[in-house]
Amino acid sequence: MARNVRPRKAKVGLSPGTLVYTGSPVGTAPRITLFSYDPDRLVERRIESPDELGPLLAGPGFHWLNVDGVHDTGLVASVGSLVNAHPLALEDVVTPGQRPKIEEFDEVTFVVAREVTYDRELRQVESEQICILLTDRILVTFQEREGDVFGPVRDRLRGGAGRLRRLGPEYLAYALLDVIVDQYFVVLEALGDEIDALEDDVLDPRSPEVQPRLRAVRGNLVHVRRACWPARDVLATVARNDSPRFSSETRLFARDAHDHAVQVAEVVESLRDVVNGLSDLHMASLSRRMNETMKVLTVISTLFIPLSFIAGVYGMNFVNMPELVWPYGYAFSLGLMAATATGLLLFFRNRRWI
Amino acid sequence: MARNVRPRKAKVGLSPGTLVYTGSPVGTAPRITLFSYDPDRLVERRIESPDELGPLLAGPGFHWLNVDGVHDTGLVASVGSLVNAHPLALEDVVTPGQRPKIEEFDEVTFVVAREVTYDRELRQVESEQICILLTDRILVTFQEREGDVFGPVRDRLRGGAGRLRRLGPEYLAYALLDVIVDQYFVVLEALGDEIDALEDDVLDPRSPEVQPRLRAVRGNLVHVRRACWPARDVLATVARNDSPRFSSETRLFARDAHDHAVQVAEVVESLRDVVNGLSDLHMASLSRRMNETMKVLTVISTLFIPLSFIAGVYGMNFVNMPELVWPYGYAFSLGLMAATATGLLLFFRNRRWI
Amino acid sequence: MARNVRPRKAKVGLSPGTLVYTGSPVGTAPRITLFSYDPDRLVERRIESPDELGPLLAGPGFHWLNVDGVHDTGLVASVGSLVNAHPLALEDVVTPGQRPKIEEFDEVTFVVAREVTYDRELRQVESEQICILLTDRILVTFQEREGDVFGPVRDRLRGGAGRLRRLGPEYLAYALLDVIVDQYFVVLEALGDEIDALEDDVLDPRSPEVQPRLRAVRGNLVHVRRACWPARDVLATVARNDSPRFSSETRLFARDAHDHAVQVAEVVESLRDVVNGLSDLHMASLSRRMNETMKVLTVISTLFIPLSFIAGVYGMNFVNMPELVWPYGYAFSLGLMAATATGLLLFFRNRRWI
Amino acid sequence: MARNVRPRKAKVGLSPGTLVYTGSPVGTAPRITLFSYDPDRLVERRIESPDELGPLLAGPGFHWLNVDGVHDTGLVASVGSLVNAHPLALEDVVTPGQRPKIEEFDEVTFVVAREVTYDRELRQVESEQICILLTDRILVTFQEREGDVFGPVRDRLRGGAGRLRRLGPEYLAYALLDVIVDQYFVVLEALGDEIDALEDDVLDPRSPEVQPRLRAVRGNLVHVRRACWPARDVLATVARNDSPRFSSETRLFARDAHDHAVQVAEVVESLRDVVNGLSDLHMASLSRRMNETMKVLTVISTLFIPLSFIAGVYGMNFVNMPELVWPYGYAFSLGLMAATATGLLLFFRNRRWI
Amino acid sequence: MARNVRPRKAKVGLSPGTLVYTGSPVGTAPRITLFSYDPDRLVERRIESPDELGPLLAGPGFHWLNVDGVHDTGLVASVGSLVNAHPLALEDVVTPGQRPKIEEFDEVTFVVAREVTYDRELRQVESEQICILLTDRILVTFQEREGDVFGPVRDRLRGGAGRLRRLGPEYLAYALLDVIVDQYFVVLEALGDEIDALEDDVLDPRSPEVQPRLRAVRGNLVHVRRACWPARDVLATVARNDSPRFSSETRLFARDAHDHAVQVAEVVESLRDVVNGLSDLHMASLSRRMNETMKVLTVISTLFIPLSFIAGVYGMNFVNMPELVWPYGYAFSLGLMAATATGLLLFFRNRRWI
Repeated sequence: MARNVRPRKAKVGLSPGTLVYTGSPVGTAPRITLFSYDPDRLVERRIESPDELGPLLAGPGFHWLNVDGVHDTGLVASVGSLVNAHPLALEDVVTPGQRPKIEEFDEVTFVVAREVTYDRELRQVESEQICILLTDRILVTFQEREGDVFGPVRDRLRGGAGRLRRLGPEYLAYALLDVIVDQYFVVLEALGDEIDALEDDVLDPRSPEVQPRLRAVRGNLVHVRRACWPARDVLATVARNDSPRFSSETRLFARDAHDHAVQVAEVVESLRDVVNGLSDLHMASLSRRMNETMKVLTVISTLFIPLSFIAGVYGMNFVNMPELVWPYGYAFSLGLMAATATGLLLFFRNRRWI
Repeated sequence: MARNVRPRKAKVGLSPGTLVYTGSPVGTAPRITLFSYDPDRLVERRIESPDELGPLLAGPGFHWLNVDGVHDTGLVASVGSLVNAHPLALEDVVTPGQRPKIEEFDEVTFVVAREVTYDRELRQVESEQICILLTDRILVTFQEREGDVFGPVRDRLRGGAGRLRRLGPEYLAYALLDVIVDQYFVVLEALGDEIDALEDDVLDPRSPEVQPRLRAVRGNLVHVRRACWPARDVLATVARNDSPRFSSETRLFARDAHDHAVQVAEVVESLRDVVNGLSDLHMASLSRRMNETMKVLTVISTLFIPLSFIAGVYGMNFVNMPELVWPYGYAFSLGLMAATATGLLLFFRNRRWI
Repeated sequence: MARNVRPRKAKVGLSPGTLVYTGSPVGTAPRITLFSYDPDRLVERRIESPDELGPLLAGPGFHWLNVDGVHDTGLVASVGSLVNAHPLALEDVVTPGQRPKIEEFDEVTFVVAREVTYDRELRQVESEQICILLTDRILVTFQEREGDVFGPVRDRLRGGAGRLRRLGPEYLAYALLDVIVDQYFVVLEALGDEIDALEDDVLDPRSPEVQPRLRAVRGNLVHVRRACWPARDVLATVARNDSPRFSSETRLFARDAHDHAVQVAEVVESLRDVVNGLSDLHMASLSRRMNETMKVLTVISTLFIPLSFIAGVYGMNFVNMPELVWPYGYAFSLGLMAATATGLLLFFRNRRWI
Repeated sequence: MARNVRPRKAKVGLSPGTLVYTGSPVGTAPRITLFSYDPDRLVERRIESPDELGPLLAGPGFHWLNVDGVHDTGLVASVGSLVNAHPLALEDVVTPGQRPKIEEFDEVTFVVAREVTYDRELRQVESEQICILLTDRILVTFQEREGDVFGPVRDRLRGGAGRLRRLGPEYLAYALLDVIVDQYFVVLEALGDEIDALEDDVLDPRSPEVQPRLRAVRGNLVHVRRACWPARDVLATVARNDSPRFSSETRLFARDAHDHAVQVAEVVESLRDVVNGLSDLHMASLSRRMNETMKVLTVISTLFIPLSFIAGVYGMNFVNMPELVWPYGYAFSLGLMAATATGLLLFFRNRRWI
Repeated sequence: MARNVRPRKAKVGLSPGTLVYTGSPVGTAPRITLFSYDPDRLVERRIESPDELGPLLAGPGFHWLNVDGVHDTGLVASVGSLVNAHPLALEDVVTPGQRPKIEEFDEVTFVVAREVTYDRELRQVESEQICILLTDRILVTFQEREGDVFGPVRDRLRGGAGRLRRLGPEYLAYALLDVIVDQYFVVLEALGDEIDALEDDVLDPRSPEVQPRLRAVRGNLVHVRRACWPARDVLATVARNDSPRFSSETRLFARDAHDHAVQVAEVVESLRDVVNGLSDLHMASLSRRMNETMKVLTVISTLFIPLSFIAGVYGMNFVNMPELVWPYGYAFSLGLMAATATGLLLFFRNRRWI
């Protein structure tokens, strides 16, 4: 849970804008792909070295440069310099764990977003930082790891004519944010399934590990909310015309995505309510079972203690105890015990204790 | 509870504005009715195919087109195109579970509302999405299922002259929202009845299932609040003149409906307080009953243990125990026990334990 | 508690502005009184039929028309039409349970307020809706029931020259609101007395019914707060010059009344804190008493169980038990028991259990 | 706790601005002192009758009139009329329990503040209402009781040249508010000492009365916060230039005093956190001790019950029980008991119950 | 915890701006260092007496004067007068425990910040007040104690050309605030480690002192939040151009530091959530262990009480008890006991009590 506190120690006192990668170590080299497109054509290239990029980006049309992996700070710096990105933006790119935000620099709009996925094995929401550098003609995206979150957008881009090819990088940026927000719904759906499963287990005493699972699902909801809440503000900024980079047509769509982000936040809240309710129910159920157990045990003891007392009385050694020599004294004593037991049982039943 | 998380998975990565129905499957075909009216006359038509609509809507006067059922995306698209509705609005129409909202597009004002009903059998609040497309002369409404929520408005429209016929679609839109808000009071009344019934049951140990009913009523109140809270904002937007589509006369009425929505929210809050109070009372009552039970059981044990001890003493086998050979030794021992029991009982009573 | 949810069902789908009385049935006919006054003279009339009013209200000077009872919707409509009141305002007049609010219509300012009283018998705060229609020369007030809340203002009006006679209906409206706010303090004082009484009872185990009384007083405080909170906003609106009907002189007084309403809200909050504290104290006291009881009972059991064991040992029937034939065996065993008991008692005392 | 609800009853329905003293009865006559000063000289007079004041206040320089005691409403009215104070302001002067506030009237700025002191004997925060009437040349202060809270300011004023003598009543008003705010720190310091003492006592079972002291200190903190919170707003109003009476130089100082008031509010919050933490700790400690007690008692019972059973077995009267006639049967039975006891003790120890 | 309430008592009633040191006593003399620099050169001097400073600060280029130790109020006054600092600012400098804030005076911008460090031995967050006086050419910093928090900035300044040397004191002020904010992350990292360690210990019954450690870590998080929250506002003020002292280039960096401060606040909140979760888990675990213990003890008692009863029955002294003279009566009784015990054990197991 405390994982997102880790990264900063190594950077205290460094000049701001210094690029130091602070995420988990990554084995493979970053993977760079470039889509050059205009309404009529689309060229898709795999880039091996940032040196190739200069001439390509100078070419006509729009360009989408995607970099998977941000641990190669030299590469990030080279790519950043191609669009005149501010060092502070690049510093954020190589520092996973940023809050989603949108910032205007002179020539570049910088967006940080957070994509979430749900690992059903580990029952854990994972999130990944997505950074977007947006200029009038070029969109650069950085992902922490290789992933296929942007796959559907790539397919729509390849698919051809439409707003995506016509409106250029600013609409493409929106489309990517929209995919990221839609992904929140998928994760919430998985968490909803987990909660439904918990709803059955919570009252079943044989079900193991309800408490850790409740705790995990609560943590996961918080994780989604922490990713979604500032994303809502980013989309509101885009929709409200506060950012000059976006066309009015795109703003209309951003308003829609903003609505979805608000909806995500609401669903998270209502699921949290459900989880809290389940948690209370679980505690109450545990406590009721415990009380029930203690009550039954105490009822048993309470039943036998008076009987033992009767037996004790007739175990006294007085020389003059008339009952002892009655022919049916023994039967009488057993009958007395049976009567006592029956009376107590009726009393208990009358009080609804058994 | 987690039901409203479901719908989105199938849509991740689709182009925004693509119409994919994400609600529950519906068997029957949508039902379309058209009211064409002006202050002087009213024509009511059942429409079989959207193709008929073009010429009809071009006719003079005002038009109210109502579509029950939004699962036929083709139909929604055709109807939407007749009023030049934005694809994003139509996407929301076919996606149940939207937040109530009002959005201005160039030619069309788009309103999403949420109607609630209470199923007394299932003790469950059900809600349905109502979408409204409003232009100067035409009002289109989409309901998820056939229902009679708009029946009273239809009757008033048929009933003749009045604001409803004179002011046109914008007042009609208000009237529909007003009916939806009034419906919240009906549901709250039913929930209030359920709470009153619970108030009696909560202290009655024989009453079964108090906890699940409290939980259900709390969930239902949250459901109403989630429908009502954004509706309040929609009506405030109308009343505040933020939306140019509405006349000042209608705005006055919208202010009134806004007051009602605020009142709904307040009643929900106060009912939640009552339910929380009942819940606490129920827990306290359970806990007090449990404690009472344990106390009585323990009192019984505590009463007999000293008596058993006395019996045990006179059950010892010492050869030289003077009491054993006293003529009234047995009576003495029984008297000792009776005195001990009486003393303990007095002590317990004095301490108010019994 | 759920009482203010009741009224609306009968009205769903009716045209807004339709007058349907939704309060409790009232037996008697409404009572109408008219004060016609200017700085120099005052005429007080009992009105039998609204038909008399037209010429009277057209007369010179200021007029205060008070109607006790709003169940006669025809009467309310007649009176309303005399000042050109909007149908929505009149609808609110006959619908008890409105939120306090102030609304500007073209010719009339409409104010809803809520008067509270405390029934010391039932320990219940009752509230009544007061509606005010204010024009330049005429003030109309509607009360749900006959009551004497406005008595002091009537006396001051009769008493003669002063702001009340000079400034006209707008100052009179303020004076009535001021009386209503002052009444909150009286109710809070009564609730404060009840809380002081509870403060003594909460720790006294013999005091019955602490919990229901705490619950009642908490409900009553919520009732006062729900009446007072929006009244604060009404007075702020008057004080802030948002309502053109009020003179700057009256606004100064309204600011003062607003301060009082804020104070009421604060006192309610602090009394709620006190009640919550008492509630916690009561629960803690109950729990401590229960624990104390169980502890003493368990101490008694624990004391005798080892003694019984000793008695049990010497009740064994072994042929060869040397103690049994010791001359002082019995005394020895009793001594052993006494020593054990003393040891245990010392141990318990040392641990501060007894 | 409920004390500040009391005063209003006698005033319901009175004309606003009517002076009725609603505080506790006061025996002594009010004490009036007048400081007339300018940068060069200072005259200090004891005033016996308000009649003397007219000519004195008309004299040159600045004047500070201090009245200790507000129960003589005639005196308050006379003094108020000398500076043309509004009747509403004077009504607040004689009504203790006002919220701190600042109000502009035409010629007079009216400030209500609340001074706090801590009575270490009673462990109770006491507060007193301070009212300030400020005109360009005259400052009038009303205190509920004679007190020395303004002593240091008087000394600085007597001490001679400086801002206090130069800037006139508006800076003097600030200086008095500053002293009042500083006094909050003194009270908080005393409460902090009490909390430190509680911190030691809370875990000590022998310490009596922890709960009432925690409750008292919490009530005292609320008292300070209720005095300080609106004072913050008063100082913010002065600092923000919303009140034309104050010079920009004074405003700079008021900003500083505002910072202190914010700091008081923060310290109160953090002390409340500490107290709540102590309260939880105390409850947890009580509960742990109780549990510990019950556990030890139950361990003792549980240890002897099996032993008693063994004794019971060998107390049975079967004619054919071989152990009974074994030469070492008795020793064997005692050994069996010892072994059982040891086994149970080891089991308990192993489970960490003892 | 209550430590920051202490300082003020000695100051009540003193003229504002009077310098009285209210922090803990400090033994050593303050240490003064002066960095005079411009883009091309840097001179570093150790200052023994404030008298040397006048000519030095009048020299060309930028100057950074750092004072370690604020207990020498004379020194603070001398240094302050060199930059025309307002007495209120200097008062704050010598009064540790100020809230972080930024204030504009005519010639000087005054910033209070709060540096935090974590003492892993004492498990305690310590904080120190840092005050900054900023003019166009001179930056004065005051630290409570000698420390190396500014070390990295000094090194970067010595390191040579760059923004730090070029942009002058306003950028240097930002750089110092940035280092202070970065330091929060270091402290949070340490607290995160402590929380991770607690996460393991919380369920381990052998782990001592979980509760005090949870309480300490919660207090430490509150400490960090109280330092960080107002720092956020300071940086927002700088970034928003509200303070004319800062260049637009620096403002861009301040926006970045502001983001970091927001992130610190969020991490604190999420760590608090984790700690609260751990605390609940710990309480639940203690309670479950206690319940488990009581249950096992009660199971043991409940098992033996019926067996003792059987033994008691056959210990009765009736002359006519047929079982007593059966040849296998003893074996029968033992078998009966074994059967009873087995039955109870099966019943308990069936109910999942053992």
